[in-house]
Amino acid sequence: MSTFETTATIASFGGKLLKLKHKSSSTNTDMALNLYLPPQAQKSGAKVPVLFYLSGLTCTGDNCSEKGFFQHGASEKGIAVVYPDTSPRGLQIQGEDDAYDFGSGAGFYVDATKEPWTKGYNMYSYITKELPEALFKSFKELDGDRVSITGHSMGGHGALTLFLKNPGKYKSVSAFAPIANPINCPWGEKAFKGYFGEDQQEKWKEHDATELVKQWKGPLDVLIDVGTGDNFYKQKQLLPENFIKAAKESGNDKGINLRFQPDYDHSYYFMASFADDHVAYAAKHLGV
Amino acid sequence: MSTFETTATIASFGGKLLKLKHKSSSTNTDMALNLYLPPQAQKSGAKVPVLFYLSGLTCTGDNCSEKGFFQHGASEKGIAVVYPDTSPRGLQIQGEDDAYDFGSGAGFYVDATKEPWTKGYNMYSYITKELPEALFKSFKELDGDRVSITGHSMGGHGALTLFLKNPGKYKSVSAFAPIANPINCPWGEKAFKGYFGEDQQEKWKEHDATELVKQWKGPLDVLIDVGTGDNFYKQKQLLPENFIKAAKESGNDKGINLRFQPDYDHSYYFMASFADDHVAYAAKHLGV
Repeated sequence: MSTFETTATIASFGGKLLKLKHKSSSTNTDMALNLYLPPQAQKSGAKVPVLFYLSGLTCTGDNCSEKGFFQHGASEKGIAVVYPDTSPRGLQIQGEDDAYDFGSGAGFYVDATKEPWTKGYNMYSYITKELPEALFKSFKELDGDRVSITGHSMGGHGALTLFLKNPGKYKSVSAFAPIANPINCPWGEKAFKGYFGEDQQEKWKEHDATELVKQWKGPLDVLIDVGTGDNFYKQKQLLPENFIKAAKESGNDKGINLRFQPDYDHSYYFMASFADDHVAYAAKHLGV
Repeated sequence: MSTFETTATIASFGGKLLKLKHKSSSTNTDMALNLYLPPQAQKSGAKVPVLFYLSGLTCTGDNCSEKGFFQHGASEKGIAVVYPDTSPRGLQIQGEDDAYDFGSGAGFYVDATKEPWTKGYNMYSYITKELPEALFKSFKELDGDRVSITGHSMGGHGALTLFLKNPGKYKSVSAFAPIANPINCPWGEKAFKGYFGEDQQEKWKEHDATELVKQWKGPLDVLIDVGTGDNFYKQKQLLPENFIKAAKESGNDKGINLRFQPDYDHSYYFMASFADDHVAYAAKHLGV
């Protein structure tokens, strides 16, 4: 039922960045997002493929629109980019805004099963169902049959898990510094304990890329970049090696390209440096 | 005498962004800046040309480093980029932090002649003399004989006036949405009144690109981009037409390329979209 309000239209790399707002039934709040329409989308009757970019902890859709440099490659390749928010905002749940790594800004791309977070912390349904359905209904220039996904940090976890849980839904997946094994790192443990409950280990595994890759059937192509100067990598919040090990053990590692980028950190300076590569990777799978 | 303290080293587009701090005798404060060293600067004995980027009102060197994407083109061409701050900070002058368009964040690239701003609002001397001298002394990989300048808004004013006041010092100049005729717009009038005094019309003219271009001897190449959706352009804060008219009347307009970019605004989305063009323009004049 969502219809979008366009709160701003900003020229960017020959296309348009739309700042959108809509009422979400998944989150029970208004949700803001940015949608980049490349120049190719302006042609009458055009259908451009779509890349969902999922942001990391503390971010809104603005951070990457401003600092991630995805529009550069997306403009060249003719790909629309969707930058959603990372959680509901303003649900008035006690403690919602207290921590940077739980609650607002930290939805972790799951549907909470534990009170009071069930009230609206349903970012899994929002990103996989409600938002794309609403977008493809409202923006006829978007091709709902050609969709890829990528993300950064918590959003890299989101990209990997949404891809692995929905075979065929996304043409490709890539990630920057993803939280690749959340059930074994402090960020993930805190989030899953809060959104699912401490004793829900099976539920936890359903949203863990390292667990999910073990179940994957068929070929698996993934591009992952991690900076060797990333403090969160060093603090074992990301654990990409666990993901690779699990993929290897289940015979799913052949198409995984994990690149360690020397000296890069966890910031948007890192993202911007490799955004073109990730857009080109998606473009290849999206047939552009 | 300045020596730099490196407060952070950040990998970016194959090179390094250094966050620097040094004691400035021009401003009587510590000054922060960012220096981007492209990958080509890492070769032993390398000498890379340098592009000074002057920021607009309210900015520090961080805004453009994060959102302007000059590093993308600078990495490809092998150009270092200097992102200075826009004013002294913390001089404890009464009212210094009260307005976004005067005082801190708004140095206007002039040396103040009016009390109490003479205490350290000497951004003209800082940018044209102290900072480059200190940089070329400390960073042997920078080629002090190949320097260009660019900037945005107040920094576009800075780039144009510093170029026009110092023939031969810069190999090229370009600007994004420059305040091209400050003596005839509200921002410029407020700043020059504050830094020079209301009755110092001759002094005002010395820092006005439209006045300076009338005096220019010899060929003049300039690249200027202005967005047609730029509200400050619409509000006549920028007045690029006055600059062109003055250049035409003095026979200096042949090499000026003023591009009106349809729909673009005054933001870093605009800058980012044309940063590659401005780096390429500088590169041509810097011989790379």
